[in-house]
Amino acid sequence: MLEDKVVKVLDTSYYPGNIMIVLGLTATNGVDKEIAEALKASHVVVEHKVFPDGESYIRIPVSVDNEHVVIVQSTYKPQDKHLVELLLAIEAVKDLGAKTITVVTPYLAYARQDKRFRTGEAISIKTILRSIRCAGADTLIVVEIHKEHVLTYFTGTAINVSAMDALAEYFKDKVENPLVLAPDTGALPRAKRFAEIIGGDYDYLEKTRDRITGEVKVRPKTISVKGRVVVIVDDIISTGKTMALAAKQALENGAREVYAACAHALFVDDAYERLKKAGIREVVATNTVPVPKGVVSVSVAPYIAKTISELYG
Amino acid sequence: MLEDKVVKVLDTSYYPGNIMIVLGLTATNGVDKEIAEALKASHVVVEHKVFPDGESYIRIPVSVDNEHVVIVQSTYKPQDKHLVELLLAIEAVKDLGAKTITVVTPYLAYARQDKRFRTGEAISIKTILRSIRCAGADTLIVVEIHKEHVLTYFTGTAINVSAMDALAEYFKDKVENPLVLAPDTGALPRAKRFAEIIGGDYDYLEKTRDRITGEVKVRPKTISVKGRVVVIVDDIISTGKTMALAAKQALENGAREVYAACAHALFVDDAYERLKKAGIREVVATNTVPVPKGVVSVSVAPYIAKTISELYG
Repeated sequence: MLEDKVVKVLDTSYYPGNIMIVLGLTATNGVDKEIAEALKASHVVVEHKVFPDGESYIRIPVSVDNEHVVIVQSTYKPQDKHLVELLLAIEAVKDLGAKTITVVTPYLAYARQDKRFRTGEAISIKTILRSIRCAGADTLIVVEIHKEHVLTYFTGTAINVSAMDALAEYFKDKVENPLVLAPDTGALPRAKRFAEIIGGDYDYLEKTRDRITGEVKVRPKTISVKGRVVVIVDDIISTGKTMALAAKQALENGAREVYAACAHALFVDDAYERLKKAGIREVVATNTVPVPKGVVSVSVAPYIAKTISELYG
Repeated sequence: MLEDKVVKVLDTSYYPGNIMIVLGLTATNGVDKEIAEALKASHVVVEHKVFPDGESYIRIPVSVDNEHVVIVQSTYKPQDKHLVELLLAIEAVKDLGAKTITVVTPYLAYARQDKRFRTGEAISIKTILRSIRCAGADTLIVVEIHKEHVLTYFTGTAINVSAMDALAEYFKDKVENPLVLAPDTGALPRAKRFAEIIGGDYDYLEKTRDRITGEVKVRPKTISVKGRVVVIVDDIISTGKTMALAAKQALENGAREVYAACAHALFVDDAYERLKKAGIREVVATNTVPVPKGVVSVSVAPYIAKTISELYG
């Protein structure tokens, strides 16, 4: 499938083999440097400031004329500033003569507003993806996007890198034969991928409300948690409420240990405390966004680098 | 010239005469309501919230199918959030079937980064204008943009409404035969327009540095300020430093009174205090951005409404 996507923007004359610039913008969390090292590419950090009135200033401090440029910018909070800075940089790199522009947004904001849940709503992710394309990106690489199908709004080549590989690798030496749980049926493919790497079984959580007591129960659809090491996996942890409820009930129902793993640890307010209080032994996330203290961070950079090298290989 | 621009997007079948929706977004400073009233159009306020993680949510609460929609959004601080919200709204309105989309950004951020002052710089205003177009705007109306020529980056119809008219009208009953000064030669057309409306003469300020003492002098190029009522006009007051220095020296050189007038009162930090301390009698700005306490605000809405009615007339 990757092959199919690649032919859309690449032809054989594109990649000279060893010239590539990895340009880190204002919100990379170190991923840019790791990608550059893995690819043996030049690592360049954008020149940046914010004017007294609040406008951002972006300058590309090296010549990118006729170069393959990989722009790395995550879009965590303040999302809109990081997005606008990304657009400014893409257009500048294009204007300055880059041969190809590959944009890497480890965390892409606005991905959850992927349809009109109510009439009249903006499909925000569509606008964001179209703006990135319009500014001049040929290829877009994201990590563990909420719904992969939204990438069709980006009319160039768009690739979703799974974060489950990096997370599962971390857990390999830590847990044996775990039960991997997705918070809902839509997220089941994540649990499946994770379970296949680590060697365990997987299921999704089903929420039911007791008709008499009104109590909400969150349980795996078919597999019992009794005596099991449980890893609950998700793309995003925001408030952590769903994750905390699932963990608490898994422990009540006899799970031996519960771990939480996610790609993007947005962690609004006291999300981490909520998870710890629910009895979760360890919270693991990737480095697509800076993680709060206490959360273990694993890097997705090698997987992004591999994707880039396959694109240009 | 307006005529030339209009034919690009309008044909005779466009405007049914009385159906138009003016949609106010999240940063209008009341201009949306005034425009709607002047045009006898429906005034609609966007539904809006910010999620706990910081992402904006935009919903158009009325049907815009087959309608002429005027979207009003100024882009003062936080500029990037207001810009992203504008893009989300444009795309939604377009998706929802609007017949035409006219975007009014009374203050358009990033307009001063209009060229590469140094190699490698982003031409920020180009990216902003292209993004607005790409999202789906047919027509763009701005007020007193820093350099009008940048509007060519917007490939639809783009119109710059002068703020000098509203400002000069305010001063008409206040001052007689003033000397209208632009802070530099590039801004001279603003002073000229202002002076022609109010009936006075105009000049621009020249900065010279004394070779021996190093003292910086700011004086009109040819006309003496002695005994004159002086109005210094500019597009933006940000720190107010240039304006304060010019006012102070005008008063030292015998000006009777000094007024400051601008389109966009960004007023970083203690800009207003700086101007008052320099002896400026009154600071007047338009309502393209909310003005700080003490600054007189005059409305540009009637001039924007007039431009829209000419477009659709």
